[in-house]
Amino acid sequence: MIDLRSDTITRPTARMRRAMAEAEVGDDVFGEDPTVRRLEEETARLLGKEAALYVPSGHMSNQLAIYAQVNSGDEIWAHRSSHILANEQGATSVLARALPRAYDDPRGYPDHDLLEQWAAGSNDVHRARPRLICLENTFTGRVVPLTEQQRVADFAHALGMSLHIDGARLWNASVELGVPPSEAASGADTVSVCFSKGLGAPVGSALAGSAETVDRARRARKLLGGGMRQAGIIAAGALHALHHHRDRLAEDHRRAAELAVALDALPGMSALARTNMVVVTTPPDEAARWARAFTEHGVGCVPIGPDLIRLVLHLEVDDAMLDQAIKRIAEAAAAARR
Amino acid sequence: MIDLRSDTITRPTARMRRAMAEAEVGDDVFGEDPTVRRLEEETARLLGKEAALYVPSGHMSNQLAIYAQVNSGDEIWAHRSSHILANEQGATSVLARALPRAYDDPRGYPDHDLLEQWAAGSNDVHRARPRLICLENTFTGRVVPLTEQQRVADFAHALGMSLHIDGARLWNASVELGVPPSEAASGADTVSVCFSKGLGAPVGSALAGSAETVDRARRARKLLGGGMRQAGIIAAGALHALHHHRDRLAEDHRRAAELAVALDALPGMSALARTNMVVVTTPPDEAARWARAFTEHGVGCVPIGPDLIRLVLHLEVDDAMLDQAIKRIAEAAAAARR
Amino acid sequence: MIDLRSDTITRPTARMRRAMAEAEVGDDVFGEDPTVRRLEEETARLLGKEAALYVPSGHMSNQLAIYAQVNSGDEIWAHRSSHILANEQGATSVLARALPRAYDDPRGYPDHDLLEQWAAGSNDVHRARPRLICLENTFTGRVVPLTEQQRVADFAHALGMSLHIDGARLWNASVELGVPPSEAASGADTVSVCFSKGLGAPVGSALAGSAETVDRARRARKLLGGGMRQAGIIAAGALHALHHHRDRLAEDHRRAAELAVALDALPGMSALARTNMVVVTTPPDEAARWARAFTEHGVGCVPIGPDLIRLVLHLEVDDAMLDQAIKRIAEAAAAARR
Amino acid sequence: MIDLRSDTITRPTARMRRAMAEAEVGDDVFGEDPTVRRLEEETARLLGKEAALYVPSGHMSNQLAIYAQVNSGDEIWAHRSSHILANEQGATSVLARALPRAYDDPRGYPDHDLLEQWAAGSNDVHRARPRLICLENTFTGRVVPLTEQQRVADFAHALGMSLHIDGARLWNASVELGVPPSEAASGADTVSVCFSKGLGAPVGSALAGSAETVDRARRARKLLGGGMRQAGIIAAGALHALHHHRDRLAEDHRRAAELAVALDALPGMSALARTNMVVVTTPPDEAARWARAFTEHGVGCVPIGPDLIRLVLHLEVDDAMLDQAIKRIAEAAAAARR
Repeated sequence: MIDLRSDTITRPTARMRRAMAEAEVGDDVFGEDPTVRRLEEETARLLGKEAALYVPSGHMSNQLAIYAQVNSGDEIWAHRSSHILANEQGATSVLARALPRAYDDPRGYPDHDLLEQWAAGSNDVHRARPRLICLENTFTGRVVPLTEQQRVADFAHALGMSLHIDGARLWNASVELGVPPSEAASGADTVSVCFSKGLGAPVGSALAGSAETVDRARRARKLLGGGMRQAGIIAAGALHALHHHRDRLAEDHRRAAELAVALDALPGMSALARTNMVVVTTPPDEAARWARAFTEHGVGCVPIGPDLIRLVLHLEVDDAMLDQAIKRIAEAAAAARR
Repeated sequence: MIDLRSDTITRPTARMRRAMAEAEVGDDVFGEDPTVRRLEEETARLLGKEAALYVPSGHMSNQLAIYAQVNSGDEIWAHRSSHILANEQGATSVLARALPRAYDDPRGYPDHDLLEQWAAGSNDVHRARPRLICLENTFTGRVVPLTEQQRVADFAHALGMSLHIDGARLWNASVELGVPPSEAASGADTVSVCFSKGLGAPVGSALAGSAETVDRARRARKLLGGGMRQAGIIAAGALHALHHHRDRLAEDHRRAAELAVALDALPGMSALARTNMVVVTTPPDEAARWARAFTEHGVGCVPIGPDLIRLVLHLEVDDAMLDQAIKRIAEAAAAARR
Repeated sequence: MIDLRSDTITRPTARMRRAMAEAEVGDDVFGEDPTVRRLEEETARLLGKEAALYVPSGHMSNQLAIYAQVNSGDEIWAHRSSHILANEQGATSVLARALPRAYDDPRGYPDHDLLEQWAAGSNDVHRARPRLICLENTFTGRVVPLTEQQRVADFAHALGMSLHIDGARLWNASVELGVPPSEAASGADTVSVCFSKGLGAPVGSALAGSAETVDRARRARKLLGGGMRQAGIIAAGALHALHHHRDRLAEDHRRAAELAVALDALPGMSALARTNMVVVTTPPDEAARWARAFTEHGVGCVPIGPDLIRLVLHLEVDDAMLDQAIKRIAEAAAAARR
Repeated sequence: MIDLRSDTITRPTARMRRAMAEAEVGDDVFGEDPTVRRLEEETARLLGKEAALYVPSGHMSNQLAIYAQVNSGDEIWAHRSSHILANEQGATSVLARALPRAYDDPRGYPDHDLLEQWAAGSNDVHRARPRLICLENTFTGRVVPLTEQQRVADFAHALGMSLHIDGARLWNASVELGVPPSEAASGADTVSVCFSKGLGAPVGSALAGSAETVDRARRARKLLGGGMRQAGIIAAGALHALHHHRDRLAEDHRRAAELAVALDALPGMSALARTNMVVVTTPPDEAARWARAFTEHGVGCVPIGPDLIRLVLHLEVDDAMLDQAIKRIAEAAAAARR
């Protein structure tokens, strides 16, 4: 099976395992784990923020960003299909008790008119108070243009709101744009990044932002039960990933482009590459059936709409496997068309 | 000033005040207020439900319906512009901790395809659990067709969800459709009705539903601090309204129709009546300025969009005042066009 | 039946009903009800605070004080048997999401050593942050000495905490101490008072405090659904009570003292008056049985412990009824002893 | 420094590190990590429950047990000094929104009279609904007698409540009592155990209970952001600990006993061993100063009261270090007495 369902499925490499086995550790709840501290400092520096916090998952990282920056009953604005609104089980209502207002733009970010419209009347006693705008970058593989991100940030700040970026794949945006991560994170008050997707570490994400916000998030991490004892063991994997697996994301992007070109040439199918993802359009309402066919032919994938299938490149897929995947999908598609 | 901002501004009539002054009361927290009990029983019967609960506001009634029927982290589906999502300060997140999913249909109810799409994948561990669909009837004066309401109810029940109707103006829907309130409330597991809008009582709403749900709501009313001692005083006003002010809503609808015809004939303006509301379309982006002009000429009103102004008929407006209002608006519009 | 269960059962007098029937009203959600405004201004002035807010119940008043002054996960300190912790259905956890820490002192307020002990280590990341101390005055009829109240206030303020007083019966404390209500409320950042207990109005309480805190509470009142439309109708009853029923509380206190003297002389029973309450001590574990006997002989009362019964004087009990009540209790006690 | 502050500070052994480096992993959010699955199955079997769930911390394990078994506004009964109430930052109010009711018994569990008293009147509309009793076993090193635990369990079940045991150190209770862990966990509906305290794994706890409750907790783990991707890496450490470090807890208990005997013989000090903990009583109000002296002489420890210091034995302390610790404390105490 060539598993292209997600880059979350990557397993630690031998060298990463060795780094973990040799990690220097301490009790991180007492702030005494040197590996965690180094990871947090390097992450903050890379992202151009004052501080960072290591957490068990990207879900927790996003939710802490919200918890640390809004009050009960405040409004957060996020994409209807963003991970925060669509894939975190209603946590925005349960933890921060924020009221989500969902934008729908297929590009992944709200246009100016919508922001203006939502800002109007926000002091009314009947309304929740707008407090936080959330972007996701990349969004289904799509990079948010830096100028658009800055525009949203400026709008948020002018209104007294903050900007959070769910940058689970911000490393991909940085590589794609050819800018350092700090530039890809510019404008954001907080940014969440993931070590266990494209970077291939087994566990963990980080939330970066101002020292004050990260302090609040650190306290709230304890509240949620996300404080871990000798977390240096897994932080060592994340640190290794940060040092050795960021640049190689360019290879995933190149392979995604090659895969898209190959699949787009197949009958009944169109395909488009965005960073490390390929989105395949099938005939109407055929995504579920075709995805099953791909899987039966040995290529794991996920339908993400009635006519859409997602394929994700990652560090466990090399060029030989890519060729193999293309062959199998061609066969599967031929079978599915029959 | 002829105040057409809302039917919430109506003040008690002399007869209603007398009914309140003579009300038999007891301690309702101990279940000992006979007037409240009578109001709750009559309301339940009118709406064709097992039980009803008297509460200080429609906001509380809606929120209790949600609190009594969902668990923390469950999904509720409601119109983006509904009172529940747009005008209750994020209470769905703070009280029931529900995750709202907003539909946008201008008719005020979701179509079948959207419901199907939202139902798909609702067992995924990443998703909140869909639990409650909310309709508003009337919605900006618009009556939800009974067949559509039943279709949504059937869909909800098939999926194990419940249906709540925010019927703040369900009395208007009932009069407009020429059916008893129980028929206008059919299909709904819970329905909230208001005594202080079109019916003209000073304070209060009621939530009706099954005995079990109303019991849970009664307990939750105490949790929110909505239990009142000798509430019979104000319940007497609501009871008087129920007996004497329901049928006369037909007059408000007739006057709304007349007002719309008159305004639609004015240059630069189009107008449409729905039950007791008139929605005026102004030239682009002129609603705020025109509304100010109407008000300066002595007709209170509320802009509800860049080009939309709402006028609401109610029991303090008689035919003479209607004529007067038409004249003043005509003058105001003429001034505004200059 | 002479109902001495509680002073909450009092019904409006004829003059109070007339005041309500004639009340000038407006839409209070738009801030346009003149009677409510007058009630809020007079209450604030009487209590020596900047502002006050009219709410449907004392429960809501207390919960708004907490909601407006603490953040999710903060600690509040209150008496284990206080109304806030023992009689408000866990609302402190559901609404403000505060962690209660309960003191137990039979006098009703915490001593200095306990406060010091609780304050120690309050910056630990494992601990909730102490934010609010709650006192109840009177507490089971007992007046909190002004010097003790000031000591607790000073301690709270030195630690960056606030002090809330649940003064449902603060009017009684003021009358008993012979000081104006503002002095009885001194030291408190917020104070909740009730119009429907000793004062005899049908519905309502008020929360007084700084303008900023009351603004936050006003917004949160809407969140809970406590905003009422033409609330002036019931506010008129509260205003009448404030003008005409405060001084007469001294009569309730005198009658309570007389009742206690009479009951204390009965065999098998000891009795103690505190402001408008009489606490009767029965033989061990006999409170429930004796209370039933009192009730069967025509005197309503409430057992509040295995050996304790509470009797409450209020404005529906005059001297003749008091004599009658004493006679009936004597008979009931004689029967119960057999 | 001989660090006796807590058994949480233990670092993974070389063999445990190897087990982690060689762990077979998969994506646990998709239920595909074989090491995590094996750890959960073995833990459930050891504890005699249907299922178990691996989580990042004992705090999360406790909070999930509560979240999975109570509704918003329900009452939980726990010891005032228990980890759940005193060291989890008010999470019971923020996450499950439960109202805590705190018992105070120095033995660590509530007596029968108190339970009876708290159960009385629990149906009152003014009260939160009692839903969960929490015990901690061991409690400050003290084993809860099995008969007492069963008595509390029976009481809870008779009242329709559940019993949760915070068994962060249940392994110690099992070893001390000479019974299998399943017997130490008997009567409990849910039990939380820790792999990173006495057992010495770097990260993780588990919650065991019925399949249905654990399913609810698994879903809620995602809600809190506790779902980890290739968690098998750290689960392998926990599994190693379970296999190799349970029996050796008896050595910690023996050393604790020896340490207590030695310290108890020192002037100005009394000492008592309970499982792996030694509690030292200093002269009045001297705990903080003496603890500093111990630390300056090279023995880490924690003051837990004005006159109490806690010392904890664990797998990084062998007999030679124990002798050394006794010598250093004797010197420190001599210095402190001067």
